[in-house]
Amino acid sequence: MGGDQKGIEQGTTFVPKFDQQGLLSAVVQDCSTDRILMLAFMDREALDATVSTGVAHFHSRSRARLWKKGESSGNVLNVEEILVDCDQDALILRCRPAGPTCHTGAVSCFYRKLEGGILQPVNS
Amino acid sequence: MGGDQKGIEQGTTFVPKFDQQGLLSAVVQDCSTDRILMLAFMDREALDATVSTGVAHFHSRSRARLWKKGESSGNVLNVEEILVDCDQDALILRCRPAGPTCHTGAVSCFYRKLEGGILQPVNS
Repeated sequence: MGGDQKGIEQGTTFVPKFDQQGLLSAVVQDCSTDRILMLAFMDREALDATVSTGVAHFHSRSRARLWKKGESSGNVLNVEEILVDCDQDALILRCRPAGPTCHTGAVSCFYRKLEGGILQPVNS
Repeated sequence: MGGDQKGIEQGTTFVPKFDQQGLLSAVVQDCSTDRILMLAFMDREALDATVSTGVAHFHSRSRARLWKKGESSGNVLNVEEILVDCDQDALILRCRPAGPTCHTGAVSCFYRKLEGGILQPVNS
């Protein structure tokens, strides 16, 4: 392991690692319940907007633009804490959601589980 | 919204959506503590291996091959439940970890938080 890798893993400097598409993964977790609410991607612009405003922003791959979560629904995600993984290519946003996170109206986008090869509702 | 999209979001059929690289995102969450342990990617091969064995497999992007988590360390992830998100391009693996998940020896790969622009250890 080179010195750079050690610095990335053990250091205090934040050097987010974007992939070939310029993105990193961000998992949104409810900071009160620890439930995982959604997963999305951030480019540098979305990360900077999230840090500067305290409200979660992502990069919409389908619309190819900055996406403030809740920009139309009002269900924004207030970011309480940002956790960073060992190689700095994934983040956890620990948030207080203003309303249901999923566009379907569900509290979490993860409202189904795989059981016996088919999808079943999650109890919640 | 077309009928296909409605079926993907509301139906019981599992039709995982892989991206242009043939991957989807998988978040590993400890099913006892709800702590998020790691994030990685799966291709079809890794997903099938995970479902058939009950042990988490991923696709290593850096090594470009199937990666059984814990294959060298022994710290496998026993999968108790798989949750699927609305558009079926992200999964949560709710797991019982056999040991520390991170290759650094940390319980979780997310052992630091961003605070005041620098990385600080997470209390745990």
